This record gives sequence, C-alpha cells and structure tokens, in this order.
Amino acid sequence: MNNYIEKNRDKFLNELLDLIRIPSVSADSKFKNDMIRAAEFVRDSIANAGADKAQIFETPGHPIVYGEKIIDPSLPTVLVYGHYDVQPADPYELWNSPPFEPVIKNDRIYARGACDDKGQFYMHVKALETMLATNTLTCNIKMMIEGEEEVGSSHLETFVKANREMLKCDTILISDTSMIANDVPSIETGLRGLTYLEVEVVGANRDLHSGVYGGGVANPINVLCEMIASLKDENGHITIPGFYDNVEELTASQRAALNAAPFDLNEYKKDLSIEDVSGELGYTTIERTSVRPTLDVNGIWGGYIGEGAKTVLPSKANAKISMRLVPNQSDQEICDLFTKHFEAIAPSSVRVKIVPHHGGLPYVTPTDSIEYKAAEMAMEESFGKKPIPTRGGGSIPIVALFEQELGRKSILMGFGLDIDGLHGPNESYGLFNFYKGIETIPLFFKHYAKLKKGE
Amino acid sequence: MNNYIEKNRDKFLNELLDLIRIPSVSADSKFKNDMIRAAEFVRDSIANAGADKAQIFETPGHPIVYGEKIIDPSLPTVLVYGHYDVQPADPYELWNSPPFEPVIKNDRIYARGACDDKGQFYMHVKALETMLATNTLTCNIKMMIEGEEEVGSSHLETFVKANREMLKCDTILISDTSMIANDVPSIETGLRGLTYLEVEVVGANRDLHSGVYGGGVANPINVLCEMIASLKDENGHITIPGFYDNVEELTASQRAALNAAPFDLNEYKKDLSIEDVSGELGYTTIERTSVRPTLDVNGIWGGYIGEGAKTVLPSKANAKISMRLVPNQSDQEICDLFTKHFEAIAPSSVRVKIVPHHGGLPYVTPTDSIEYKAAEMAMEESFGKKPIPTRGGGSIPIVALFEQELGRKSILMGFGLDIDGLHGPNESYGLFNFYKGIETIPLFFKHYAKLKKGE
Repeated sequence: MNNYIEKNRDKFLNELLDLIRIPSVSADSKFKNDMIRAAEFVRDSIANAGADKAQIFETPGHPIVYGEKIIDPSLPTVLVYGHYDVQPADPYELWNSPPFEPVIKNDRIYARGACDDKGQFYMHVKALETMLATNTLTCNIKMMIEGEEEVGSSHLETFVKANREMLKCDTILISDTSMIANDVPSIETGLRGLTYLEVEVVGANRDLHSGVYGGGVANPINVLCEMIASLKDENGHITIPGFYDNVEELTASQRAALNAAPFDLNEYKKDLSIEDVSGELGYTTIERTSVRPTLDVNGIWGGYIGEGAKTVLPSKANAKISMRLVPNQSDQEICDLFTKHFEAIAPSSVRVKIVPHHGGLPYVTPTDSIEYKAAEMAMEESFGKKPIPTRGGGSIPIVALFEQELGRKSILMGFGLDIDGLHGPNESYGLFNFYKGIETIPLFFKHYAKLKKGE
Repeated sequence: MNNYIEKNRDKFLNELLDLIRIPSVSADSKFKNDMIRAAEFVRDSIANAGADKAQIFETPGHPIVYGEKIIDPSLPTVLVYGHYDVQPADPYELWNSPPFEPVIKNDRIYARGACDDKGQFYMHVKALETMLATNTLTCNIKMMIEGEEEVGSSHLETFVKANREMLKCDTILISDTSMIANDVPSIETGLRGLTYLEVEVVGANRDLHSGVYGGGVANPINVLCEMIASLKDENGHITIPGFYDNVEELTASQRAALNAAPFDLNEYKKDLSIEDVSGELGYTTIERTSVRPTLDVNGIWGGYIGEGAKTVLPSKANAKISMRLVPNQSDQEICDLFTKHFEAIAPSSVRVKIVPHHGGLPYVTPTDSIEYKAAEMAMEESFGKKPIPTRGGGSIPIVALFEQELGRKSILMGFGLDIDGLHGPNESYGLFNFYKGIETIPLFFKHYAKLKKGE
C-alpha cells in the first residue's frame, strides 16, 4: 500500500495543486463559477479513485459532491466529510505569492486552501484510490464534500435531512483540524461552536462635516467602538447577560489533563511576535483557546479609509463579530442574547441593525469509543507514537448536525499544524502531512473494521 | 454693477461648472494631473477677469495660484484666499449623481466642491471681473488660491514665509464658511483648530484563525475599540490628560449671546433623521459644535470587510482620528498629548503606531475691526439685514498662519449653508448663494475702502 503511495507521490500532489488553482471562495459571489468548477473536479476525482457513484447535488447555495464505494453491505460504513470551498484570500497584498497559484517551498505547499480543507480532504480521495488499487479496502466508504463550510454550511442541514438513508453510516471521519506537531500527533476531541453576526450603527442620514457637526451629533464609529468595548469587562469576561449560563465548567482534573499537553508560552509568543498573550483572567492560553468562549471582531469599517485625511463624520459604521462557543452553549441562544443586548446598549442617538450570519453548536467526542480507538491505533502505527486527545478552538458546525441527524459521532483526525496559517495570508500545508495523511487513513479503516468485528 | 452680474449669470455659472468637472482631490495621488489642470484653470480665469498678473507657483505638493490687480499703491490691499482642491468623493455609491458631473436641481448645484471651496472662491474671481468691467474697484486685490487646504495646507506656510512682500496686505478676505440661513446672514468670527492623526494597532505578525487563536491572543480590532472608547468618559469629556488645560472658557454672557442665534433643535434632529443629539454634558448643541473641542473617529478599518463571513483574527486595525480645537489649544501640543496618552493606554499584547497628519490652530476675529464692519455693512446692504456674528466649528488653519506671518486678521465672509453637505455625498451650493456672493463681495471692497480712508 505504501508502495503505491510512494510510486504516485508526484501524481497525487499535482492533482491537489490543480484543485487548489480553482479559487473556490464560497463567501464571495464573484467566484460562483469557480465553485462549480471545483465541485466538478471533486466529483471526477472521486469517480477516478474508483467509487461506484460520484455525483453533484445542487442546493440553493453551492453544490454538494457525494460519492460512495459499497464493497459489502455487511461491513461497517464510514462517511468521510470535507469541504472544497475556501476562505477569501484578502488581503491579497500580504501574500508572498498569489493565493491561487500554489508554490512549493521548504517542503510546504503555499496557497489558499492548501490545508483548509483541500489538502486535507483530498488525502481521503487518494487514500480511497490507494486502497482500491491495492485491494485493501476493509469498510464501505461514503464521501460528502460540501462547498459552504466557510459560510456556515447553510444548506447542508436540509441536504442531510433529505438524504438520511443515503448517508447512513457507522461513523464519520473528518480531516479538517490540526495536530500538536509532526512528532506529537494528536486528535481533537472537542470543537467550539460559533455565532457570527454583522452589526451596523447608523447616526445621521448622511455623512457630515466633522467641523460643522462634530461634538453635537453622535459619531457612529465612536459609538460602535464604545459598544464593542463594553462587551468585555476589564478581566476579559464577556458582559452579555446570560452568556455564561450554560458554559460547561471543567473539573480540576480535566483542566490539569488539558494543560498537560506540550505548550511553550515563550515559543508561542515568539512565533506570533507578541510581547504578551491576552485573554480571560484565571485561564491558561490552552484553556482560553479551547474550552472557554470568545468574542472577536473579525472585521470593522466606517468613514474614510483612503489615503490622507478626510474630516468626515460618517453616517454609519459596521462590524463583523463572532463568538466561539463551548459545550453546552447554543449558537441560536447566544445569537439571541447578543442581539437583545446590543440593541439594549445602543444610545438613543443612533440606530443599530443586526444581521446573523451562520452559527454552529459546540461538540465533544468520547475517547472510549471504537472509532476514537481506531483513529488512535492508526496514528500510533503511522507516527510511531500514541496521539494525545486535545480540545480544539475552531468550529465545524457539521459535527453537531451529524450527531443530531445521523445519530453518529465524528472523528476529527486532522493532519494540519498551527503554522499552516489557516484563514490568513500565506496559508500552507506540509508535504509530510499530506503524505502522512494518505498513509494513515487506510490504517483507520483497517483498525476500525477489526474493532467493529470484535464488538 | 448688478446689471453686469445679471447679464452674465449663465456665463458665470457655466465657468464654475467647468471648474467643478475637474476632480481636484488633493488627498489622493491618482488625481495629481487633475490638480494641475485645476490650477491652470484658476490661473486662466484670474487672468481673464482682468488681473495684471496670474501665475502658478510650484510647491513640493500641489501648486498655488497667485494673481493680483494693483490699481493704486496708496489704496488699501485685500488678499483673497481660497482653495481649488476638494475632499475625496468616497463613498461614490451614496451620490445621487456622479460627484464630478455637476447637475442643477431645485436651484442648487450638486457636485463635489460645488460649495467647498470652488463655488465660494470662484465668486471672488467673478466679483473681480465685475468690478473691473464696471470700473468700480476701490482697493488693490491679491488672490492666493491653494490646492492643499483639504490636506492641511502643508506647503502654504513655506510659501507665505518666502513671499511676505508679495502677499503684503491690509486684510484677508475668505469665503469658505457658512451663514445661518439665506434670510439670516451671519459672519463667522471664530474657527476651531484641528489635530488629525492616524493610528495602527498591531497584534500578531499575521492574520490568525479565530478558532485556533481566539481568546488567547489580543484582537487588534477589539483593542482599538477599547482604546478609542476610553478616550471619552460617560459624560462625553475627553480623557486625554491635559487636553482641556488651555481651553478658553466662555463667560455666562458670551454663552448667552452664542445661544441667542436662531436654532431649532427639533428641525436639526429632523434634518439629520436622528432621535437624539449627543455630546459633552453641560453644553448646548451650538456650544458643542463651535466653542468646545471634539474627538471624532473619521475612519476605521481592520480584518475582513468583504461579503459574507470570515473568521479571522486580524493582525492589525487602523483608525483616522481628529480633534477639533478651540482657543487657546495648540494643535501641536494636543498632537503630542494624544500620542503620549495613546501609547500609554496600549496593552502590552499589542504595539501601536501613530502618524500625525495635519493640524491647525483655532482662531478668533474681533468684531470691532474695520474689516469686520466692512463685511457687516456689505452683507446688510445686499441681504437687507445685519449679519449675526457666529463661532464656527470647522477649521481653516491658514487664518492663524496669516495672522502670524502677515500680521493681518482674516474676515470669514462665507455664503454657504449647513444643508450644503460639505465633505459628504451630494454636496451642493445654492444658485442664490453663488450670485449673492458675487453681489456682496464688491460691496465689501466699497465699504472697506471708505472705512480705511476715514480711519
């Protein structure tokens, strides 16, 4: 099997680079045609890997690609999930090379989507090809690769609900997360949820001269800043009433286990070129970025942002604000609490408009399940080291949906690293990680089939 | 004289529209050639009005146009100041018609620069033409029309210092301010000063994934919002240490006189479509916008501002911040106080960079001077009503410079209205105001020459 991977190294990589070259940015409608091209590419690659079935399902948004290889209905079935859409590449000027023209440098692929999630889900397509070519497939495989993960998987719920039978499986396998390091393999056993909203603060009905009106009429930018600032207190606690009501508090031993993961604060600060970390008082950086909820402004704009000076008192100001959620917060409830609070704190000199974007529930995977053990054994076999269970700070809203609609847990066997720079400029993915993933995935199927048989 | 104006109404207007069509935006280097075209247009129009001399002076920035008509060295000399540059027209999508294609609607000219300051300074060119054509000029006239007023008149000081002899005059006449209403003429006797800075808050050395790092690393947008919010307390007082130390406090009778000007708060709110005004506790709207200093964010940007959602934890956030100053604040001192304070309040998790743009001193004109009286008499004659002295909220840094370098006071005889919407979209200027200005300016010269003679 590893022989087949070795022989096809260049072919596998070149195919991935072709996929990356398609700028499949789901958030921006100007890439609509590229989304369709990417979906077709994924469909064809699943078919070429040897699947029985590979097709595109239209949605009111971007299409979903589904494929399957059913070798024996009595064997366990694994549903692989991934996404072919990528984050916007802005700001383009911070990239060292064009985001959709991948370059290989220092054994890393630099491009938008190199890791998230093209590099990672494509490992599954190539693992499928490898297992079929070497006749080593031990489970039935279903693959669902969507195109709206970066914009909240808006149409996936309807699709999953309408296709429960087709998607029926024993577990779900996802590579869209990171490990601690190439020599410290790990598996994410929890994810944060997400509530994402866009707010607008409106003052006067037109832009005003800041000399003529300044001091007497509310400035929406100042007001927006004041409102955002008031969302956290001096200890970094979020001030939205009810925000922490359902937050799962970890026990002392759970916290100790979490903080036992290798972590060097000095290295962390050095890597980011910061003097100091920052966050909620009373929690470590590991806790702040995994088991504690957050509130971050992801974008802000208002007034004159061109060259030079313009003394305008703008009519409005906007911000994109997201909150990462932890068990047992509900994204919908937090969305409602935020909206109610933000409206309540707006002074009477302005009006606010709030538009919810997408959300997702937080998620936890038990480490005593057969699927977790299979992933653990697979990584131990390929890395030569037992992986550490971690809690991730990111969000893959789909895992909560799967549990609810398909009644199955997901395994987050990701091969990325923190240095991959997801969502930022110069995203990259290590060649080591790409090939190690293709090597590890078939081992998961091998161990999973065995463990299921002995159940 | 009025006969000549009446006969040339269309010609005067069409010339102004031609000038407005040149997008002379000084803040944006892509309009550099248009700035040169505008300067040439101004030079030619001064020459065509009958000046002895009209020429362009190069500066390291945009050129200055100077012209003069010396009829008799023993007569008083008036220096007319204006500016041919305009504010950026962004945001273009809020204009009802393209900003540099003027349209006349309801007896108003709609275009960027219609009033500020093309419409206003061009009245002086046409008044000169009228006086020369009708042989009624009673003073020597010098005209200096610059191209950097909207970006802080950066090179004017050097020019004035180098050309003191050429610019020697008895008073300076400027039309770059507003009246209360067309039936309530007024003259501005004070202006606020200005300090304008650009700030940058930098967190990590790259954009980060808000799931992976969120909660543990400072978000520069949140930090910038918190820093900006902290610049004012709950009463709208600015918190920068020392900020109010030199602020001129008005006496009770000065305040009463100021608040006696016609002002309808309900009309004001209705015109702006706001529920409530906003500002410093203990002061009226008239006071807040004229004799009290301000702090406004004129622009803010950071993170993802495109369509849809992007869960980025950005590396930096920026804002343009300006402060309007009142007598006896110094723009340089306030710039230093702001910089020191802003650096001091930055948390150790970020770095800040502060770049000062331009500034200007506040200014007051005495109402018992000959030049003020001449302006008062001119407006009384043309409007049939004595003008009210007011204090303006805007800034024309040049007036403080003139006083310092030429030893002369400036008269701010402006013909604009608040509804002109300077600096915002759909700027406009009334035809009534344009022609009334051309009619009033020669009356200023008439009364000024008489008063000077009887001195």
